[in-house]
Amino acid sequence: MLYDHDTIVAPATAPGGALAVIRLSGDETLTVCDRIFRGRRPLADAEGYTVHYGRILDGERIVDDVLVSVFRAPHSYTGEDSAEISCHGSQYIVSEILRLAIAAGARTADPGEFTIRAYLAGKMDLSQAEAVADMIASSSRAAHTLASTQMRGGYSATLETLRGELLELASLLELELDFSEEDVEFADRNRLRTTMERIGLEIRAMRDSFSLGNAIKQGVAVAIAGAPNVGKSTLLNRLLNEERALVSDIAGTTRDVIEETANIDGVQFRFLDTAGIRTTDDALERMGIERTRSSISRARIVLYLLDATAMNDFSRLPEPDFTLRDDQRMIYVVNKIDRIGDGAISPATPNTPNVPIFISARNGEGIERLRRALRDSIDTDALYHGDAVVSNTRHFEALDRAAEALRNALDGLRNGLPTDLLSEEIRQVTTHLGTITGRGQITSDEILKNIFSKFCIGK
Amino acid sequence: MLYDHDTIVAPATAPGGALAVIRLSGDETLTVCDRIFRGRRPLADAEGYTVHYGRILDGERIVDDVLVSVFRAPHSYTGEDSAEISCHGSQYIVSEILRLAIAAGARTADPGEFTIRAYLAGKMDLSQAEAVADMIASSSRAAHTLASTQMRGGYSATLETLRGELLELASLLELELDFSEEDVEFADRNRLRTTMERIGLEIRAMRDSFSLGNAIKQGVAVAIAGAPNVGKSTLLNRLLNEERALVSDIAGTTRDVIEETANIDGVQFRFLDTAGIRTTDDALERMGIERTRSSISRARIVLYLLDATAMNDFSRLPEPDFTLRDDQRMIYVVNKIDRIGDGAISPATPNTPNVPIFISARNGEGIERLRRALRDSIDTDALYHGDAVVSNTRHFEALDRAAEALRNALDGLRNGLPTDLLSEEIRQVTTHLGTITGRGQITSDEILKNIFSKFCIGK
Repeated sequence: MLYDHDTIVAPATAPGGALAVIRLSGDETLTVCDRIFRGRRPLADAEGYTVHYGRILDGERIVDDVLVSVFRAPHSYTGEDSAEISCHGSQYIVSEILRLAIAAGARTADPGEFTIRAYLAGKMDLSQAEAVADMIASSSRAAHTLASTQMRGGYSATLETLRGELLELASLLELELDFSEEDVEFADRNRLRTTMERIGLEIRAMRDSFSLGNAIKQGVAVAIAGAPNVGKSTLLNRLLNEERALVSDIAGTTRDVIEETANIDGVQFRFLDTAGIRTTDDALERMGIERTRSSISRARIVLYLLDATAMNDFSRLPEPDFTLRDDQRMIYVVNKIDRIGDGAISPATPNTPNVPIFISARNGEGIERLRRALRDSIDTDALYHGDAVVSNTRHFEALDRAAEALRNALDGLRNGLPTDLLSEEIRQVTTHLGTITGRGQITSDEILKNIFSKFCIGK
Repeated sequence: MLYDHDTIVAPATAPGGALAVIRLSGDETLTVCDRIFRGRRPLADAEGYTVHYGRILDGERIVDDVLVSVFRAPHSYTGEDSAEISCHGSQYIVSEILRLAIAAGARTADPGEFTIRAYLAGKMDLSQAEAVADMIASSSRAAHTLASTQMRGGYSATLETLRGELLELASLLELELDFSEEDVEFADRNRLRTTMERIGLEIRAMRDSFSLGNAIKQGVAVAIAGAPNVGKSTLLNRLLNEERALVSDIAGTTRDVIEETANIDGVQFRFLDTAGIRTTDDALERMGIERTRSSISRARIVLYLLDATAMNDFSRLPEPDFTLRDDQRMIYVVNKIDRIGDGAISPATPNTPNVPIFISARNGEGIERLRRALRDSIDTDALYHGDAVVSNTRHFEALDRAAEALRNALDGLRNGLPTDLLSEEIRQVTTHLGTITGRGQITSDEILKNIFSKFCIGK
């Protein structure tokens, strides 16, 4: 079914704008359009990359004045004949045009079906196609760079280089088999191990970049922990408000802002719901504590908030009543410094472990330093220099399997595994790497459907 | 300022779709685009109605792969050079492209500013421009037809005909003044009166159509009244669910559905919040009653719901404890017929005053009949035959003033008002009618701004 070129239709824009775009693709696109569109001449005669003014008609009734952009196979996103109908952004008009297009021979597109077709037409590999969805979802510079690098194929190129090297190693080993009676060794075992170890390092580095990539893509999870009344909710509002003030100067872009996320210098942070913030009822206190523990376990960064007015010695910080994993980081934050004497604290040294950041959530003092500390905890240098950073769970899992297979191969090499089995182990690694881009092997319809089901309609 | 052709930019689509469109218009549109866009050749060399693939760049950094549609003055919506940048539907990308366009010389468009320019370029009159916003907001077939008729100028043509007739009458009277010494009467006073009376009828008919037009545009307000526990909230859910089932077969179109509206055969109904529906606390009962009274006074139709299990004689319906205005209609509805014996009621005759509609909100019996009764209360025949139906408050007010001025003119005619003053009274009528289309007189910047401030960004 996926290999059909039947004509699909879907809205490509969200409801609520001044205009809406409806997208069609498939062999019959222009025939379908001509059945519902009347312009100066039929779209079937139109060249690619041209725009046509006319009307969508339901019999004789005018549904809307529209512009139709025409794209001709193979020079389109999908590689097929395609069209984009730009109409007034009314839900009624959009649903009418969809209804008419379907009556004229199109069918509703599945999520991501336009991009599946682009992939099947060889316009992009699988990881590039997946990056299209990430690109659309990106809401920060870092997430955008992540998706953009992947979409432009930098990431695929890195993977293909590794896969190519491994395939060459396997071929060399297989060549030995052809000459097995002569006892030659085309692949020097020492060089083989060195190369495999280097590739293993690269694969593991890519796999491990998922922690960063995923945090950037989903938003870096931050929990604000601390005793009741230390100012957790004031701090949260302060962090969110600073952000709101920063983004509000471009009109029309902030309507969909999700609560409790803040963009700090191009990285999205996601503040997890913590106890104290929303529990106003004492009876809920216990549930709150449970939720705090859950937030802390999901966080990448924990802000441990203390009350300056309740402290005697700022060089001796209390131990928190929770423990963190190695991949988590805690930042001590001392709040309410506006309520203690001026000389009570010495200037804080930012970013040194266990040196707290002194703030007043109430008047904003020290907040910029805290924002900087949050931002500095995410190292985006590699990302902005174009390094491959993994942000896709499917890729992470494939890389993990590839790393595992490579370790098996190295074990085999060390234990004198026969050449044919060794070669087979190495080919296992290339198979796992190949699932990421979908190159060098057939990707099943089921896997494709699973990947693209997460796409939005109309892409 | 309004008459400038400086280059404006705005997003034209809502956040959250697969793609987003950013619109530019003004003398420098293509220069601005070329500063941030790199394609196969500069857009400045492009012909109108062509599409161009390329990249939006921030210096050397790639922001997105885009398609740019180019329109050349005067063959564009605004009559100016214009462009539409179609990019991936990410908020980050949209805000980046807006930022870059502004840095390259564009400024953020005010709401409706593209349409103001279309009006100023003579592409449409004021009432047509106002219909563009209604078109975008339309969410039912009736509201769409209303906006569509107005946008295509059918409505303006009716107004211009009336205005033309009045101007001719005034001219004839003024001609008499030029020949005043000769005591001629170019305008037969009897024919004058007949004509003015006919025009007065037409103006009043248009004015009075506002009641229907406004109901269709805003959604027909329906209040569900009745004693506690007669099943008001079950009925509301039933009416809404029937509707939801009807619309849910087209994907992606129902995300923005506003709660408590239902589309019945092309007309939008709006169910007002009524007591009993949301008051679960006895202490709130009094507030609820107050709210019911307010809902009833705002409703066009009141469904007065009775409980069949509490009634003895279905031919004697209880009087409601509220009174309705002449422009309101009440429909008796007897609920819970599933709980009484089969022979207890005779079949209802729909749409006869005070004959109730028997329903079971619980099992859906009779609901289709109720929906039909609601729908039949709105006469859309005139609308679908292309008659001018007023839906705009500004137009209603202008028509009301025109009707008032015409009555003054007729009074003057009856009382032998001097010809020059009579002519002046008639010209008053044409002035009021003229404000609707903006033709035949200068519309002040202030009025324009007021009209277009209700538009969405990007249109």
